[in-house]
This record gives sequence, C-alpha cells and structure tokens, in this order.
Amino acid sequence: MLEETLPLATVTVLAVLEQAYFSLQVINARRKFSVSAPATSGPPEFERVFRAQTNCSEYFPIFISVLWTAGVFFSPGLSSVCGLLYLYGRFRYFHGYSESSQGRLAPLYFSAHVLWALIGLSSLGIVLSFFRFYLDFQLGSALNLF
Amino acid sequence: MLEETLPLATVTVLAVLEQAYFSLQVINARRKFSVSAPATSGPPEFERVFRAQTNCSEYFPIFISVLWTAGVFFSPGLSSVCGLLYLYGRFRYFHGYSESSQGRLAPLYFSAHVLWALIGLSSLGIVLSFFRFYLDFQLGSALNLF
Amino acid sequence: MLEETLPLATVTVLAVLEQAYFSLQVINARRKFSVSAPATSGPPEFERVFRAQTNCSEYFPIFISVLWTAGVFFSPGLSSVCGLLYLYGRFRYFHGYSESSQGRLAPLYFSAHVLWALIGLSSLGIVLSFFRFYLDFQLGSALNLF
Repeated sequence: MLEETLPLATVTVLAVLEQAYFSLQVINARRKFSVSAPATSGPPEFERVFRAQTNCSEYFPIFISVLWTAGVFFSPGLSSVCGLLYLYGRFRYFHGYSESSQGRLAPLYFSAHVLWALIGLSSLGIVLSFFRFYLDFQLGSALNLF
Repeated sequence: MLEETLPLATVTVLAVLEQAYFSLQVINARRKFSVSAPATSGPPEFERVFRAQTNCSEYFPIFISVLWTAGVFFSPGLSSVCGLLYLYGRFRYFHGYSESSQGRLAPLYFSAHVLWALIGLSSLGIVLSFFRFYLDFQLGSALNLF
Repeated sequence: MLEETLPLATVTVLAVLEQAYFSLQVINARRKFSVSAPATSGPPEFERVFRAQTNCSEYFPIFISVLWTAGVFFSPGLSSVCGLLYLYGRFRYFHGYSESSQGRLAPLYFSAHVLWALIGLSSLGIVLSFFRFYLDFQLGSALNLF
C-alpha cells in the first residue's frame, strides 16, 4: 500500500517545492518594485507576480486532494503523470502571468484541463470502488445461501 | 480500510466541485463588472463575490483536514454527514455574500458550527485512539506476567 | 499503522485550532479598526493582522502535506516535533507581524527553516522507501534463482 503511494508522495513534495519557488519570486518582486509588506498593491508588474502566486496557492490544496483521491482509488501511476503535467502547467502559468495578463490564459486552461482529468479519475475510482464493495457484499450474501 | 474511507473521498470530490463552481462565479463576475485580472478591487458587488470565493478557498484545506481526521479516527459516516452539511452551508454563504455583506453571516455561523463539530469529533477520536492504544499496551504487559 | 499516525493527527488538529484563533483575531481587528467585509484594506495595523492570517492560511496546506509525507515515509515522531515547532513559530510570527512589519521577520525565517526541515525529511523518506522497495524486489528476484 505504502509503496503504491510513493509516486504520489513524490509529486506532493515537488508541488511544495514549486510553491516555495513561487514564494521566492514574490519576495524578489517586492524588492524589485519596492512594495513592502503588508501592501499587496503596486505596479501591475508586481501585482501580476503576486496574483500568480496567490492563485497557485489557492489551487494547491484542491490539486493535492484530487491527486491523492485519483491515485488511491483509481491509479497512482496515471494520477502522478497528471500531477506532473499540472505542475508543468502551473510553472508556465506563473511565468506567463508575470509577463502579461494575456500570457496566463493558455497555461491556465491547460492546468484546468489536467485538474478536470484528475477530478474525472477520482470520480471514476470512487464509483468503481462503490460497485466493487457492493458486488463483493452481494456475492458474499449469495454464497451464504449455500 | 479503503472501503471505509469511500464516503470521505466522495465528500472530498464534491468539495472540489463546489470550489470549481465558486471559481466560475468569480470569472463571470469579472466579466459582468469589467474587472480584469490582476485587479481584485472594483464595485462592492464584485468584491463580495471575490471575497466569498477567497474565504471558501482559505477554509477548504482546514475542512478537508478535519473531515479526514474525524472520519479516520472517529466515524467516516458521521464525518461525511457533517461534511455534506458544511458544503451546503458554504453554498448558502457564497450566494448570501454575493447579495449582501449581511447575507453572509447566518450561513457563515452555520458552517463554523459544523467545522467546530468536525474539530470536536477529530479530538474525541484522537483521545479515544490514544487510550485504546495505551490500554492495549497495558493489557499486553499484564498478560506477559502470566 | 493508524496508531503511528496519531501524533500527526494531533498536530493537524492543533494546526486547525491555531488557524481558528488567527481568524478570530482578524474578526476582532475588523471591529477595532472599523473595517467591514468585503473590504480588506484599512489602517496598517489592520492590514498587518489581515496579511498575517492570510499568509498562515496560504502555508497551512503546504505544512500539512509535508507533515504527513515526512511522518508517514520517514518518522512520525520527528515530523510531529517539527510540526509543533512550526506552529510555535507561526504563533510568534502572527503576533510579531500584528505589532510591526519588522516583527514578522525573525519568526518567519524560523518557520521557513522548520518547513525546509520537513521537506528534507519527506524527500529523504521517499528516497529511502524507493531504495527499500527496489532492493526488496532485487532480493526477491535473486532468491528466485535458487
């Protein structure tokens, strides 16, 4: 069981490292554009970096939840591959958004599609597990008749 | 073990779908009130929708953490029922807040009470598990005397 | 397995309680400085409390992810001790930031170091688990030769 979740744990640590990287970019942008905490507004260049990081942070727990649900109830391998694609999409989103508001859109749609794929795999895994559990129960009851 | 967590996984996926729904409402509000990213301030109608979504996002990982702790250490069924009530409360909170600041309060208190119930169930489950573990150990030591 | 994760579940519930405490402080600050929702800007005293809570919320899911990865794949005891240190650092960060922007820095660096320690333990645990899994497999294949 634990071995099967190793790829999921690996993707989780990579996701944390990516968030740490985004946080460092915000610290750099605060210095570069002289926006001292607690302020979060400033030149659009700063605000785009700040909002890119906030958006990635907001989606982090959603991503981790469906990564593990899809991984445990459907397939750890397929879920981890989707996880890596998601992290790649978020990396491109962050740098696209840092350059222009328009630049965030293509990688944002890509990340959203990967997230929907993970939601789909999670749902499929849950439905299949319900059926398996229910059929085992039915089979067990049927066998008890003999 | 895995079968017992199926209701928790189901509530988790429903919570993710609810967050996706809230995000789409923010995208609609951005269009309706012409507030382009990265801006997050605008007319109060927009700011209420934006803050409602931010607040739900902020509580999402806290909710998922206590949902699973209460579910694994106390009762997956009771925890999942609380989870569904929480998601219902958050749905009413989002739409109440979208209409007026006052409208967010009743469902916010409701969600907070459900969250406290989940924190209570988690704590109870952890304390009971500690006792069970400690008593098993004690019993084991006592049996070794014979 | 479940007993081993009890300290991690305990730290998780404590982390949730700490977030609840921070949220109550923001509600108090909203009253004290007359900043009604949905507004999030106001006097610097309010903005510091608000940003302190937002920053802690943002790091909450990252912290929970590495707490459990380090706990399950390396050591639940060591990971829980790091977890308690992190929560202590965040408590000091919140109160330091509430007083002055400068006051947030020392406890922020402390929390960041503890988080990096948890990322290190997670990575080490994952690498060791990969090797153990691979070596068991290798040993299994070698034994099949006899």
